[in-house]
Amino acid sequence: MVEALLSGVGASRVLTDRNSRGSYARDQGPLTEPAEPAVVVLAENVDEVQHVMRCAHRLGVPVVARGRGTSLSGGAHAVPGCIILSLERMNRIIEVRPQDEVAVVEPGVINADLNLAAAPHGLMYAPDPASHAISTLGGNVATNAGGLRCAKYGVTRDSVLALDVVLADGTLIHTGHVTFKGVAGYDLTALFIGSEGTLGIVVGITVRLKYLPVETRTLAAFFPDLPAAAAGVLAIGAARVQPAILELLDGNTLAILDAAFDSHLGERGDALLLVQTDGFGAAAEAAVVQEVLRAVGATVEAEEGAEAGMLLDLRRNARGDGVDDDFRVGEDVAVPRSQLVHYAAELERIARDLGVRLRLVAHAGDGNLHPTFWVPRDEGVAGTSRLHAALDESVKVALGLGGTITGEHGVGQYKLKWLPWEQSPDVIDLQRRIKEAFDPRGILNPGKAIS
Amino acid sequence: MVEALLSGVGASRVLTDRNSRGSYARDQGPLTEPAEPAVVVLAENVDEVQHVMRCAHRLGVPVVARGRGTSLSGGAHAVPGCIILSLERMNRIIEVRPQDEVAVVEPGVINADLNLAAAPHGLMYAPDPASHAISTLGGNVATNAGGLRCAKYGVTRDSVLALDVVLADGTLIHTGHVTFKGVAGYDLTALFIGSEGTLGIVVGITVRLKYLPVETRTLAAFFPDLPAAAAGVLAIGAARVQPAILELLDGNTLAILDAAFDSHLGERGDALLLVQTDGFGAAAEAAVVQEVLRAVGATVEAEEGAEAGMLLDLRRNARGDGVDDDFRVGEDVAVPRSQLVHYAAELERIARDLGVRLRLVAHAGDGNLHPTFWVPRDEGVAGTSRLHAALDESVKVALGLGGTITGEHGVGQYKLKWLPWEQSPDVIDLQRRIKEAFDPRGILNPGKAIS
Ligand SMILES: Cc1cc2nc3c(=O)[nH]c(=O)nc-3n(C[C@H](O)[C@H](O)[C@H](O)COP(=O)(O)OP(=O)(O)OC[C@H]3O[C@@H](n4cnc5c(N)ncnc54)[C@H](O)[C@@H]3O)c2cc1C
Ligand SMILES: Cc1cc2nc3c(=O)[nH]c(=O)nc-3n(C[C@H](O)[C@H](O)[C@H](O)COP(=O)(O)OP(=O)(O)OC[C@H]3O[C@@H](n4cnc5c(N)ncnc54)[C@H](O)[C@@H]3O)c2cc1C
Repeated sequence: MVEALLSGVGASRVLTDRNSRGSYARDQGPLTEPAEPAVVVLAENVDEVQHVMRCAHRLGVPVVARGRGTSLSGGAHAVPGCIILSLERMNRIIEVRPQDEVAVVEPGVINADLNLAAAPHGLMYAPDPASHAISTLGGNVATNAGGLRCAKYGVTRDSVLALDVVLADGTLIHTGHVTFKGVAGYDLTALFIGSEGTLGIVVGITVRLKYLPVETRTLAAFFPDLPAAAAGVLAIGAARVQPAILELLDGNTLAILDAAFDSHLGERGDALLLVQTDGFGAAAEAAVVQEVLRAVGATVEAEEGAEAGMLLDLRRNARGDGVDDDFRVGEDVAVPRSQLVHYAAELERIARDLGVRLRLVAHAGDGNLHPTFWVPRDEGVAGTSRLHAALDESVKVALGLGGTITGEHGVGQYKLKWLPWEQSPDVIDLQRRIKEAFDPRGILNPGKAIS
Repeated sequence: MVEALLSGVGASRVLTDRNSRGSYARDQGPLTEPAEPAVVVLAENVDEVQHVMRCAHRLGVPVVARGRGTSLSGGAHAVPGCIILSLERMNRIIEVRPQDEVAVVEPGVINADLNLAAAPHGLMYAPDPASHAISTLGGNVATNAGGLRCAKYGVTRDSVLALDVVLADGTLIHTGHVTFKGVAGYDLTALFIGSEGTLGIVVGITVRLKYLPVETRTLAAFFPDLPAAAAGVLAIGAARVQPAILELLDGNTLAILDAAFDSHLGERGDALLLVQTDGFGAAAEAAVVQEVLRAVGATVEAEEGAEAGMLLDLRRNARGDGVDDDFRVGEDVAVPRSQLVHYAAELERIARDLGVRLRLVAHAGDGNLHPTFWVPRDEGVAGTSRLHAALDESVKVALGLGGTITGEHGVGQYKLKWLPWEQSPDVIDLQRRIKEAFDPRGILNPGKAIS
């Protein structure tokens, strides 16, 4: 196989040494089935990607596409004997078209870099995962990534107009349209988005850019406890104001941030709602938000300039330190907004009942919660079995409230066990048939994303 | 077949008389292959839809789903000997959930009726085709309908969270999530949206509602000619202001409206940009729009209250009178925004060169244009062949500029001939494989939407 690969990819970018294989073996999600790739290919252009897929297809070798490996669900974990196909070197911004308000990029472009390129034109790429400085647009597309300002601006799918995709057999296709609207044929673009590398390799992305807001206003609202902060989210909704950012951080998260970054958030309350309004109405919207949050008992302060940016950066860093494992797992459930208060209370109950630690951040405007449960390492198996019970229970409760097992991180490898709790056998079957139509030999990221 | 149908659907709703079959035989699009249905079924619930599909699947009879038959591309035209499966009686709004900001409806609900139900809660269903008072949400979903306020709020796909779908063999599945975000498995919801009844019958729709704007401002900007108005669209874009509505009407359209509705638009200019800003920043945005449009030579007037509403209603009626046929065809191309001025001029050139009449309305904010070409009936074949040459040429030019053959109306039956001009054989092939995975017997709206 390596020989076949070398016939179309420069030798320095076909890595078979132990170190390389090890460092490309996993992403930042929990690892359930450790596996090593046979080889890592650092593709530099579309031809090379096509070559890799042709080889893999002929030889029946699994291929795991990889951006920067920041997945939190094991979507980019190696499967035994696979080719890791890294797109990180395909990182050119092909063009920003200010009048068309679109940009065309290679998949390895870092999300934040596109925003840097768009800003001078008064434009932005809206979907901004907290990992925006370290994750690729290809990875964002493959997971349909969300982020902080998605409540107002939509998720990745809502900003992607067209894709270039290399199919399982090496065929290159183009889907979608450069125009803002287009309904010719099936929405293949949307089908590839969120398919986690199981239907094709994304090698080109055309996105719609939105307007950089003329103004933003940032508010920090501190609450006495978590359910009160969740109620604040509903109060803003009831006022029919749509913030660009509406993030919730619980007391444990504040304590961890304070310890790590020498901030003093914990002194100000036991739960924080971070609200940003933007656009021509930013000030008026912030005034309404301030009023309704004070009415439900919050201490609200307007954060100016650098401080506002710092607070948002703190939120982005709220996951903090490294990868998930057996002793710590970050979740990604979503619930209908009306259930936020109840679900926040349920999370605290579950942690208490099962004796596990909990911290919570949430893209609260979307009802998308990231509880992290953890247990001390020295508790060994006893701890991890309580941890897993808490995870299962938190997912079950979310589903019972009409929620989903994954709001934005994807199913990957880790959440496969929960997928049948959410999807009916008929849906699972239909997805399998789609997978087969795209990838009859089953070589694209097998064992991920769908049951 | 009728007997089989009667075993699961009330006799009064299985129509085989000539009149009924005739009146359900076509939609408002041009008719290329006249055909009569064998039977019309007016389904009243999901069970009945499942029953119809089971019968059709067993007997291999084609089924054409139908909302209100307002399609402009022949998507709802009968195919020979088919069952017309009308969903118009399944028109209950199951629930509006104000705190969750979602609604659940049956497919036969008229778009405008959902908005009436949402408004008391300060909510709206954003996608508003000009046909909002006469088309169904099922039809909107099946065509991924656009509308007037889609530049700001997105198209149907961007507002639909979940679907209940009856598959070709009668199986009922549920796709998507009630939460605003959710990435578990493939995006089947998006795949059904815009599939024009070829992959399944939509029997339930869960939509996200947006906030009714606190304020709107409407401007009427009159220009000396069409390209100048198109340049106005770009000027607003360059100012990075996002109107909710940005519609363009040419001089011929103004003349037709004036004649039909006794308005006096034509006196004010030869092309009109109708701009509405909304939300907390509406006034500030309108002020910027007014300034930049005046700077490019427009006469801009703020329209207040009833007058603003009247102008928008006029725009919605701009298609006016009835169905398309051999002598008149309305188009639905879209081009990248930067090409608007050039393309508007090209349309006028094509009409001139080929001696056909032209009028144009456009969802200009999206680059989505609806030119209507027509020739006098008494010219017979000579006229229609010039008409078709103009249509072909307008589509070719749009594609050459990076555009699409259909921005929102769908391919249906009429635009199938142009689809291979836009899609590569590999994409066409991939779509066929998807179709086969969903509908192996090929009974769902055969000969529509995909090549
Ligand atoms: C600190 C931190 C914060 C985060 N915050 C968020 C957040 O707010 N919102 C959010 O949605 N996610 C978040 N994530 C998760 C992660 O960053 C996203 O899933 C991101 O989209 C992954 O990008 P990546 O380039 O690292 O992709 P990878 O992790 O390398 O891959 C992710 C998946 O996409 C597939 N893939 C990658 N590139 C391609 C391609 N070109 N073609 C086909 N398939 C491909 C892989 O096979 C894998 O299944 C966060 C992660 C971290 C570590
Ligand atoms: C005056 C006028 C203005 C218009 N303006 C716009 C506009 O601004 N934007 C726009 O996008 N369109 C517009 N249209 C086109 C048309 O109204 C839309 O395509 C609309 O979505 C069709 O809805 P319908 O209920 O009439 O569906 P139909 O015409 O009955 O059907 C349309 C297609 O959807 C399928 N279908 C219908 N219901 C279902 C279902 N429940 N399950 C599966 N498939 C189904 C049909 O088979 C057919 O392929 C306009 C039409 C008119 C006459």
